[in-house]
Amino acid sequence: MFESAELGHRLSRADYAAIEPELRTALLEAQFRLLESKAFATVILINGIDGAGRGETVNLLHEWMDPRHMQVHAFDNPSEEERERPFMWRFWRALPPRGKIGVLFGNWYSEPLGDRAQGRIKKARLDQHLSEFNRFEAMLAAEGVLLVKFWFHLSRAGQKKRLKALEANPDTRWRVRDSDWLVYKEYERYREVAEHVLRRTSTGLAPWIIVDGSDPQFRAVKVGRTLLDGLQRKLDALEKGFRTRQTAPPLAPPVDQRNLLNALVLRQPMEKKDYDKQLERLQGRLALAVRSDAFAARSLVLVFEGMDAAGKGGAIRRVTQALDTRQYHVVPIAAPSDEERAQPYLWRFWRRVPRDGKVAIFDRSWYGRVLVERVEGFCSEADWMRAYAEINDFEDQLVSAGAVVVKFWLSVSPEEQLKRFHDREAEAFKRYKITEEDWRNREKWPLYEPAVCDMIDRTSTENAGWTLVEADNKYFARVKILSTLVERLEAALGH
Amino acid sequence: MFESAELGHRLSRADYAAIEPELRTALLEAQFRLLESKAFATVILINGIDGAGRGETVNLLHEWMDPRHMQVHAFDNPSEEERERPFMWRFWRALPPRGKIGVLFGNWYSEPLGDRAQGRIKKARLDQHLSEFNRFEAMLAAEGVLLVKFWFHLSRAGQKKRLKALEANPDTRWRVRDSDWLVYKEYERYREVAEHVLRRTSTGLAPWIIVDGSDPQFRAVKVGRTLLDGLQRKLDALEKGFRTRQTAPPLAPPVDQRNLLNALVLRQPMEKKDYDKQLERLQGRLALAVRSDAFAARSLVLVFEGMDAAGKGGAIRRVTQALDTRQYHVVPIAAPSDEERAQPYLWRFWRRVPRDGKVAIFDRSWYGRVLVERVEGFCSEADWMRAYAEINDFEDQLVSAGAVVVKFWLSVSPEEQLKRFHDREAEAFKRYKITEEDWRNREKWPLYEPAVCDMIDRTSTENAGWTLVEADNKYFARVKILSTLVERLEAALGH
Repeated sequence: MFESAELGHRLSRADYAAIEPELRTALLEAQFRLLESKAFATVILINGIDGAGRGETVNLLHEWMDPRHMQVHAFDNPSEEERERPFMWRFWRALPPRGKIGVLFGNWYSEPLGDRAQGRIKKARLDQHLSEFNRFEAMLAAEGVLLVKFWFHLSRAGQKKRLKALEANPDTRWRVRDSDWLVYKEYERYREVAEHVLRRTSTGLAPWIIVDGSDPQFRAVKVGRTLLDGLQRKLDALEKGFRTRQTAPPLAPPVDQRNLLNALVLRQPMEKKDYDKQLERLQGRLALAVRSDAFAARSLVLVFEGMDAAGKGGAIRRVTQALDTRQYHVVPIAAPSDEERAQPYLWRFWRRVPRDGKVAIFDRSWYGRVLVERVEGFCSEADWMRAYAEINDFEDQLVSAGAVVVKFWLSVSPEEQLKRFHDREAEAFKRYKITEEDWRNREKWPLYEPAVCDMIDRTSTENAGWTLVEADNKYFARVKILSTLVERLEAALGH
Repeated sequence: MFESAELGHRLSRADYAAIEPELRTALLEAQFRLLESKAFATVILINGIDGAGRGETVNLLHEWMDPRHMQVHAFDNPSEEERERPFMWRFWRALPPRGKIGVLFGNWYSEPLGDRAQGRIKKARLDQHLSEFNRFEAMLAAEGVLLVKFWFHLSRAGQKKRLKALEANPDTRWRVRDSDWLVYKEYERYREVAEHVLRRTSTGLAPWIIVDGSDPQFRAVKVGRTLLDGLQRKLDALEKGFRTRQTAPPLAPPVDQRNLLNALVLRQPMEKKDYDKQLERLQGRLALAVRSDAFAARSLVLVFEGMDAAGKGGAIRRVTQALDTRQYHVVPIAAPSDEERAQPYLWRFWRRVPRDGKVAIFDRSWYGRVLVERVEGFCSEADWMRAYAEINDFEDQLVSAGAVVVKFWLSVSPEEQLKRFHDREAEAFKRYKITEEDWRNREKWPLYEPAVCDMIDRTSTENAGWTLVEADNKYFARVKILSTLVERLEAALGH
């Protein structure tokens, strides 16, 4: 969930100064449209890592919007009177009426998250809470509430840096409490629990928006734009007379130009000689792993996604060279057949789930739902928005059944892609591999890029993370893929 | 959940013979409409108590419908190959394509239900499963699948009778396995777990339909009509061009004339003298209970619903007479105010949740959502369909926080109601109590009756069951209310 938020997003003070007045005016306008229409209530959840700028953001929202129509509720430990009522009672009462905005700084997520991170409750109990929250939020959405859930994130290094900086300044030293350092010490544990909570409660109608909290300017614009988009989209939809009261807030609109894909250095060094040596060694380890006794009680699911001509096929061949043909299936995914179209979109993948001791290699996969189907409009926004949670549930099922799930995204630069297209056209036996559609997709790349970034953020889970592969140099890409795979597999098998 | 199903529904062979041919033809027609339109897939879940006629129903469906387009999958213990795949795998693969019907006899619910009933898994683990199932079924609904979930029920006595009858007949003796008697012995435990499972997974889009399994004719018609209604409604909606692919199956259409309300004998004997004596004694016990130390850590939520002039007000006064005025609030519920209309429908009740040591008495309540709002069309079907689960969640929160929740439905006969209306009109100081609306409501009673029965079935839970009060005789009604209340309260306080 935190991939994009750990890229180190930045926005200069100058850029901020240029953006802020307009954003502020637009937010205020949206607030008044909401107030006049009384069309729905807006609930903003503020959660996240200590020191990632939650309080500052609340103050900023207070400054930007008209505070008469936006109420901030800060929740810490419940009072005695609150403890004598249902857990949700104080939050129920803090909900804003239609036309208004409520900011809940600390909310239903805070206590169970802390309790789990500090080991006071078990995972099953946490999950009971999360399922209650999902049902509650589904009810709010059905009642027309716009729910915008912000998670302010800092990398471990970022958190340390920020706490140190606050301590170093006599004016801000008071803001660092002992508990902040405690949380820092338990950062990994807290991050892991947060990742689970965010994943389980990111639904199509109420997705979490992860905000990189390290840069104040970036953070402010990200929050402001997300909120603005959410308000405008829902107001527009209602004005156009759409009966659907359930409009999801948008996934985060971009602020700076930095994203997971363009942060990659796509051409990585690797000589043929080095490649040959490493390939042989890695294929040997892979062959051993999948022939081991331990693997007889596990299975392996490989997902290859990537741009056209990024080298998926070649990489897959380097994997299968190490496998027994009876042990694996390569499943190439193209447009669904009529039989497949008559079923839920996951059905054609359900059929190909490997049994113990087997390997299934998907050359493109269920991620088509949030890539090509999203970009080409083959399904509605509501459909691909709910797909993230559905895909995570599907992969959870695989992992629970003992499958090792390894997912690769292969990226090539536009130049390298062009070169490979031309090479393919020139070589007779490869000509079938390049079609009109490839050229069309290439032009649509700007639309694919945000879809890929959202996919990686929203489906990189504890157990089934994405590996981004810099693929301009095929040798490097194949070695990275094989070594990632071998390491994940050996770790899972306890080698 | 099982209230209506334990009434002892019956349908004579003659009635069945008159109904069956038409129902069968209609089902076959609906099946072919589905097949031709290829509009959606239909999944029928068959679950329930052993001996309640699940197998017979599956056979009957097979006989009624065209088996080329309806596939039955019977799931028992998973095979070795199935165990090596995700838990859901074998069910995923059994889903029918669009245009077809799949009957899943035994399904994702079976194993967790049995595991919990036999103490192999904890409640929190069961709840994890149930939340997975809810997410999975929501996905199916979003993918357009019509999901009809049947639970075949037998009362404990009904189950025993049936097992004995099977054993007594040499032709059917083989059908009774030892495990059946084991399940019978653990009936209460199994019923309790089933109630929890059904409640937690009865959603607006995929509600459970509880079928009284004791009478073969009744059972068959109930299943047939529910399925027919579900198919027709969804086919009609799609033909009319509604974009909404998510249509819930109907709550069970009536088969016989018997229901929870008309099964009541409304005039019960109770003399004034006896009433006075019992009232005094019960009020004394109530006064003691609410003044006890144990009650200082609990609270009490009373819900009074009932027909107009059923005597809610009088009964409430007999309760409050035993209470300290500082300790209770009577909350009369009329049409919502503008302030309340600007919030989710539960908000005005959230505000009135009592703290520890206090009593809140609701004279009408949140059940307005599934009564007057349903009948008068103040909210959409989707809204009141989802309300059952939302209300159960709300009451769960109350109970988890230590509240004792006691709910009364007061029923009077049309004759007694008419008499009370006329009495009110005659007495000057009571005239304000009778309005045009009361007369209108009286005429609408036939519409209210099924709404009340659905409400009782779908919101009578382990912790917050409904008590039906026969109220033609006010003395009897008040004593029943007070004694139920006192017993529930004393039990909760450990007296």
